[in-house]
Amino acid sequence: MTNAPREIEDLIELMSKLPGLGPRSARRAVLYLIRKRGLLLAPLADAMHAVAVSARECVTCGNVSTSEVCEICTSEKRATGELCVVEDVADLWAMERAGVFKGRYHVLGGTLSALDAVGPEELRIPKLVSRVADEGIGEVILALNATIDGQTTAHYIAEELEDRCTVTSLAQGVPIGGELDYLDDGTITAALKARKRL
Amino acid sequence: MTNAPREIEDLIELMSKLPGLGPRSARRAVLYLIRKRGLLLAPLADAMHAVAVSARECVTCGNVSTSEVCEICTSEKRATGELCVVEDVADLWAMERAGVFKGRYHVLGGTLSALDAVGPEELRIPKLVSRVADEGIGEVILALNATIDGQTTAHYIAEELEDRCTVTSLAQGVPIGGELDYLDDGTITAALKARKRL
Repeated sequence: MTNAPREIEDLIELMSKLPGLGPRSARRAVLYLIRKRGLLLAPLADAMHAVAVSARECVTCGNVSTSEVCEICTSEKRATGELCVVEDVADLWAMERAGVFKGRYHVLGGTLSALDAVGPEELRIPKLVSRVADEGIGEVILALNATIDGQTTAHYIAEELEDRCTVTSLAQGVPIGGELDYLDDGTITAALKARKRL
Repeated sequence: MTNAPREIEDLIELMSKLPGLGPRSARRAVLYLIRKRGLLLAPLADAMHAVAVSARECVTCGNVSTSEVCEICTSEKRATGELCVVEDVADLWAMERAGVFKGRYHVLGGTLSALDAVGPEELRIPKLVSRVADEGIGEVILALNATIDGQTTAHYIAEELEDRCTVTSLAQGVPIGGELDYLDDGTITAALKARKRL
């Protein structure tokens, strides 16, 4: 389409599949990368290769990891007995940026959705229930997005865990319809501190 | 910052240096890549590596290439005797997408700019002058952006080549202040057809 060499056309094609990049911005990004091929393109290729061969899901919590069990699950500094349940890894990262939660996580991998036929088995909900028993969890903090699907999922989990542990949820500060990954750290901190029993 | 493994942090850091991506969109892109690590991340790493080792500047025209002289300069289908002068490779690609120009190119690598201390030697202008003589060029078509710097550069080149060949420039259709890479193909075609002697 641009009569560029095949290697460059291929790279543009792949780059344009990234979220947030279209064909034009992919072409601009590729030209930028070619200009900085020593400083940026080669290191980026190496970094992608390193992640491609090492990235996997933590078997315990579902976080992205480079080992079978992620760094948070194996860290001795993390409090046991408290689990923070998030929809996806971007939300886990948002919690970590706020830096206020010192326990461990459980990544659901989405929300319950009748429309998309996502039931508890498609998420990591059975694993959550077994972790609560196995790890002696006293409190499960639901940090789900304040969307319909997120809150439906929160209520489902609260019922599942009703007699097994305390279930709380982020309360104050999460705006209706808002998503966790877009919140500022202060709001996340306030919401965690004001969590309330479901 | 996200407590992700170092390999993933490194990749986010490098991705956020791409034009059009900030820290948040880099994080989202990396999570997307990890989810599609087989289908997209590994091929993208390979494609970047291939470009990193093979990309170079065409010694004749300054186009990006994977060989010493680019495919357009070596193509026998391309008319000799006509040179289209563009500021950068993105503009060359825009001309190629329009598909109306059948000659060869000369990529300046920027525009003259007193403010940024860019003189004729920083661009590929001396090389352009020697090509006109060596290749027996009859017409040089200036396809520079309709910005102040672009038009200053066009007038400088027109004076340099005055007695050596015909110098024309894209005329009709290039909007004042507009940049070539953002034009639709029809406008570029109209501008090429209505080129006028400087």
